Amino acid sequence: MKYIIGVDLGGTTVSIGLFNSDLKLINSIVLSTEAHKGVDYILSKISSSVLNLIKSRKISKKDVLGIGFGSPGPLDTKKGIIHFCPNLKGWKNVPLVKIVSSKTGISTYLENDANAAAYGEWRMGSGKGVCNMLFATLGTGIGGGLILNGELYHGKDDAAGELGHVILFPDGIKCGCGSKGCIEMYASATGIVRRAKEALNTSTILTSKDVYLAALKKNKIALNIMEETGRFLGIVFSSIINLLNLDMIVIGGNVSNAGEMLLKPIRKEIIRTAMYPAKNIKVIKAKLGPNAGMIGAACLVLDRINK
Amino acid sequence: MKYIIGVDLGGTTVSIGLFNSDLKLINSIVLSTEAHKGVDYILSKISSSVLNLIKSRKISKKDVLGIGFGSPGPLDTKKGIIHFCPNLKGWKNVPLVKIVSSKTGISTYLENDANAAAYGEWRMGSGKGVCNMLFATLGTGIGGGLILNGELYHGKDDAAGELGHVILFPDGIKCGCGSKGCIEMYASATGIVRRAKEALNTSTILTSKDVYLAALKKNKIALNIMEETGRFLGIVFSSIINLLNLDMIVIGGNVSNAGEMLLKPIRKEIIRTAMYPAKNIKVIKAKLGPNAGMIGAACLVLDRINK
Repeated sequence: MKYIIGVDLGGTTVSIGLFNSDLKLINSIVLSTEAHKGVDYILSKISSSVLNLIKSRKISKKDVLGIGFGSPGPLDTKKGIIHFCPNLKGWKNVPLVKIVSSKTGISTYLENDANAAAYGEWRMGSGKGVCNMLFATLGTGIGGGLILNGELYHGKDDAAGELGHVILFPDGIKCGCGSKGCIEMYASATGIVRRAKEALNTSTILTSKDVYLAALKKNKIALNIMEETGRFLGIVFSSIINLLNLDMIVIGGNVSNAGEMLLKPIRKEIIRTAMYPAKNIKVIKAKLGPNAGMIGAACLVLDRINK
Repeated sequence: MKYIIGVDLGGTTVSIGLFNSDLKLINSIVLSTEAHKGVDYILSKISSSVLNLIKSRKISKKDVLGIGFGSPGPLDTKKGIIHFCPNLKGWKNVPLVKIVSSKTGISTYLENDANAAAYGEWRMGSGKGVCNMLFATLGTGIGGGLILNGELYHGKDDAAGELGHVILFPDGIKCGCGSKGCIEMYASATGIVRRAKEALNTSTILTSKDVYLAALKKNKIALNIMEETGRFLGIVFSSIINLLNLDMIVIGGNVSNAGEMLLKPIRKEIIRTAMYPAKNIKVIKAKLGPNAGMIGAACLVLDRINK
């Protein structure tokens, strides 16, 4: 039996999964990232955790096909370098693949985190079998990944998929990226909380889940906020599917836990604004939850080996 | 020597080009479409024109590799059927490939017109050698075609590339597609003329070229309209390149004859609003002019034969 390691490297935690070659999860651990302790500290900690994980199952190193990383970027998947990371202070042009493969003696592969999650949902989750798919992850920010013509799409500099910075309102509120009115400012968890606070004029709303729970209790303002969030996303998705004529949009991230309360107004807006036949698209919830990135990173190891 | 026929089927005219297998144009003719005379009339006229064109050069039918069509749609490239055409009244589920190949005895291939033009600009024009490219055609409306990962991108139902219906202002003016605020309503020739008429409060502006010529003469309002057109396009392009991280945007269609007067504000807006590294994109004018579709349709014959 052969094995694969999938790693989801985040600003707060690192998830490490041990999979068999059928991509069944055997065991996983979560570490604290402790980004302030520097690159070498965290990559050493991840490397020794990987080695412990396979040792604890009495797996020989030569039976591990590879370690796949999903990491924030910008990064270079071919060179295996993380250029920099807003969430990992002080990381600059880190040759992650070189460092981890040398520390572990196992082939290592690097992918953008949102792309890894998109790939996971495509191979093992909601997107199985489709050819053209957008994965949208609605969390603190908004991320995205694209499967086009049955392949993960990277773009020129591995920077494709910045769904959060598709512009909804050209004269809208200022975004951290330097532009104005990006969809992330409205439909991320942060955007939902901001809009709810403005509408409710209250400080009891602290998370987007509070808005969702208030909407479940038929609070009209909260219901409106959730419906409007779906409408905003629907507008952006209509533009994207008019351009890309996708088969499916898969919605993940914490905000997607609102389920049909969010998906219904998204679909309604797409029907209203997208063109025929592009509007005949499936919009569904992601299946893999927070494991999508770790699973996708493992899937990508198989993909890269077979190329 | 082998030969190829490229056909650009438009609502008003049909351009037919005879190419050698190095894609050098040998001869071309332009017919009036006369769409009101029905499907059979125009397809018979095109077929006999193709046969006359090769006969006049003493070319044997067996040396013609194929006839490529660029046509408005929606259409099905694999089945060779045009579902319907806003510009070709009464055309409904026309099996163009079957009809033309039977009338001519030559293998026939069908592609969306904007895609054919994008392919032409990519293979023989401004986009030579790039991997990921958007071709934007700014005419009466706005069309588009995408080259992704070094291939013409079709999407699920051959409907990808509807750049004109990417939404600029969600609460903007009503578009023919049923949505509101599509970029086509602002930055097409029609949109430019409408905005200029509103701003100048005059009826002397009849075409977008008039606006361009007035801007050349330093008319401030016309200069503003042209600059704003570039800015509007730049906003939409920023969203697209944040999502697709393209190498290049190639701008064609009549409006692109304004050249740098249009391209400069587009580039400025992209620098201002797109993310790094996606904003490092080339934005250049198309090279092939109105022949892009005919040339691209011919290129696609070679491409399909070699698949």
